Amino acid sequence: MEATRVELAELAPDAQAYLGQLAYLTLVLFENLGRGAAVAPTVSGKSRLGRVAAEVLEIHEAVLAELESRRIDPTEAMEPYRAVLDDFQRRTEGDDWHEILITCYLTSGFLLDFFAGLAAGLPGGLSDRISALLSDDDAEDLLVEELRESIDGNPRLASRLAMWGRRLVGDTMLVARSALRLEDRADGEERIEPIFTELIAAHTRRMDALGLTA
Amino acid sequence: MEATRVELAELAPDAQAYLGQLAYLTLVLFENLGRGAAVAPTVSGKSRLGRVAAEVLEIHEAVLAELESRRIDPTEAMEPYRAVLDDFQRRTEGDDWHEILITCYLTSGFLLDFFAGLAAGLPGGLSDRISALLSDDDAEDLLVEELRESIDGNPRLASRLAMWGRRLVGDTMLVARSALRLEDRADGEERIEPIFTELIAAHTRRMDALGLTA
Repeated sequence: MEATRVELAELAPDAQAYLGQLAYLTLVLFENLGRGAAVAPTVSGKSRLGRVAAEVLEIHEAVLAELESRRIDPTEAMEPYRAVLDDFQRRTEGDDWHEILITCYLTSGFLLDFFAGLAAGLPGGLSDRISALLSDDDAEDLLVEELRESIDGNPRLASRLAMWGRRLVGDTMLVARSALRLEDRADGEERIEPIFTELIAAHTRRMDALGLTA
Repeated sequence: MEATRVELAELAPDAQAYLGQLAYLTLVLFENLGRGAAVAPTVSGKSRLGRVAAEVLEIHEAVLAELESRRIDPTEAMEPYRAVLDDFQRRTEGDDWHEILITCYLTSGFLLDFFAGLAAGLPGGLSDRISALLSDDDAEDLLVEELRESIDGNPRLASRLAMWGRRLVGDTMLVARSALRLEDRADGEERIEPIFTELIAAHTRRMDALGLTA
């Protein structure tokens, strides 16, 4: 992700916009995990989603603390991103346990990767703290374990989830794109291309980890 | 709660049963908070529920760690309590934002209080660690703030929520009762009474804090 980090840094929004979006995004991810836990068919599946939610909420709380230390009201910082992210959530929510689960895995993987890249464009100390916060990916492993247990030996489910994964990536890219500061750049579009090429490669690796074709 | 702690200690289940129930209960509370966050009418309400969920999941993770340190599989420890707690959840889920919110406040208040009391009957080191874990109540304050903002100046809502609160307490008491080890005691019923008298007094204080009649 090194090249991507440099490219992304130049398009990063200011600290308030970055933190406000990341704070609201983590709430959306938490809700998806809660919805998944509610329909989990097993105790272990429910408990795994609980552990992933704990990590996502740890990010949320750390981001709120960053806002508060800058004397920015967290609610005001999140508000401008609510409509876009709520809409994203509705379009990607999934109909059953497996779709919700793969939504949690793919959208949080893609978007937290993306925000980790963008963090390079934040002021020094903040940039380091946020990068450290977003570098932990135990959560991803838990979701992969849960998904593999379902998919292995179930080719019909695999093909349905592969399709759902392709459907998700478009909406996920759009919501990531909306976080970039592009207005004041004539060369915006060409700068975005290599960034998304790398993010999509990471998405493909996530699908591969489940034995699914991206 | 000192008297209650002593009474409860004598009826406490063994460590595995205690930890299994508390682990599953915290998942149920997490799901309720997730469902609440999904219908929160404001960004601040959503964020507050996220912060409460973070605390509930912290308890969940600490309880899983206690089970693992005793070489007990967490899933097996939780499984026996699933049906009763899922049923409890269905009967208390509430229809809208305010009902969900007061469900989170009253059921988690009552049941975490109850488990804190029961912890006195656990082996020494475990008892202290669990008591410390359950003694933090920032979460309750966040829910009270959110509820008061809605209820103040809205007597119709207050009366609807007072009714819902009375409806909840019966189911909550039943699920607490099911956690007690009563089978081998002839004097079970008379021992339970003072315990529930104190838990209901705490419930009444929780309603009072919102200006509602219990």
